Amino acid sequence: MDKYQKIPDVVIKRLPIYLRYLDQLSAMDVETVSSQQMGDDLNLNPAQIRKDLSIFGDFGVKGMGYRVSDLSEKLRSILGLDKEIPIILVGVGNLGAALCQYNRYQSPSTRIVSVFDGHPSKVGQTVGSMVVKPMEDMEDFVQQNKVKMGIITVPSQAAQKVADQMIESGITVILNFAPTLIHVPSNVKVQNSDVTTELQALSYYL
Amino acid sequence: MDKYQKIPDVVIKRLPIYLRYLDQLSAMDVETVSSQQMGDDLNLNPAQIRKDLSIFGDFGVKGMGYRVSDLSEKLRSILGLDKEIPIILVGVGNLGAALCQYNRYQSPSTRIVSVFDGHPSKVGQTVGSMVVKPMEDMEDFVQQNKVKMGIITVPSQAAQKVADQMIESGITVILNFAPTLIHVPSNVKVQNSDVTTELQALSYYL
Repeated sequence: MDKYQKIPDVVIKRLPIYLRYLDQLSAMDVETVSSQQMGDDLNLNPAQIRKDLSIFGDFGVKGMGYRVSDLSEKLRSILGLDKEIPIILVGVGNLGAALCQYNRYQSPSTRIVSVFDGHPSKVGQTVGSMVVKPMEDMEDFVQQNKVKMGIITVPSQAAQKVADQMIESGITVILNFAPTLIHVPSNVKVQNSDVTTELQALSYYL
Repeated sequence: MDKYQKIPDVVIKRLPIYLRYLDQLSAMDVETVSSQQMGDDLNLNPAQIRKDLSIFGDFGVKGMGYRVSDLSEKLRSILGLDKEIPIILVGVGNLGAALCQYNRYQSPSTRIVSVFDGHPSKVGQTVGSMVVKPMEDMEDFVQQNKVKMGIITVPSQAAQKVADQMIESGITVILNFAPTLIHVPSNVKVQNSDVTTELQALSYYL
């Protein structure tokens, strides 16, 4: 993993988009694709695509483009998606429930395996075919199942505490949907996903 | 707007994050902030912050940093958030309902003003204090209320059709939560927001 460490986050974020596209091509029995075609279909610059992919090796075949199955296999391996990645989610409000429900159908490799909530009224409910567990059970679950990734969908004021508990339990990568900044040690990766800031950024293009 | 057109999307996406941070400082009666402090608090490179902000003008005061109120006012104006931006949402599943509910409390300037769904069973329901309207009412609503931004939270197979209807009605900016690519004319801006690709990108950091 070390040799990849300087790869910009923006490049990493594009890899799953390439992967999903390649999987769609594969489902249509398409065997090769050019960076030009990828760029057209994905609304991205073909030169950017070639540059992104060249970081990880030489996948192109001159005059033919990329072999769909080779490239998707390689991307899956780079992203660590060749095995199942167990994820926990904390906070079963509307958004948390929606993510659990959606995840059942959409994510073969990144899978929410357990959900937790601090409210006694939520504990024992079923979301996305999982029974909500109390926060006290989180640490044991994370350690026994070697979970490294967590999703936070609690209100802002609870987000930091939940993040701290996750990190103490052994979580190293957090996807945070609470609209607030959480502070974490430098060895923990946090990605903030906030619809409000997305909408605000988009309003620039109006 | 023309003079800003070459600003990279990644810079635009950081502006709402700066803005939210500045609003938090303002609520704590902080009057000035250095790029160093901003960088520490936001987990960003201070040089990157200075570079981002310098695109839009010279906001810093030597030895003092940025004036919080001036900078937040300027960012709000750059993003077009000094007025209310009406938004419609199509697709009242779990995710759509969660976004409507959440938006009521979080977004003073980017506001979901109406929701639509193609399923008769959803029409007439109330989400986030709005009554779900049938798709046939969308075009009139968009035109009468000069709505330019739309959120898509329908299943993948319905996303393109909904996007086409939005664009025909006059929508020019779309936030798409359906896990599929939608094709739009070059004058329409689409931002894809997909939890699965976010989780897949994050798995790289495990």
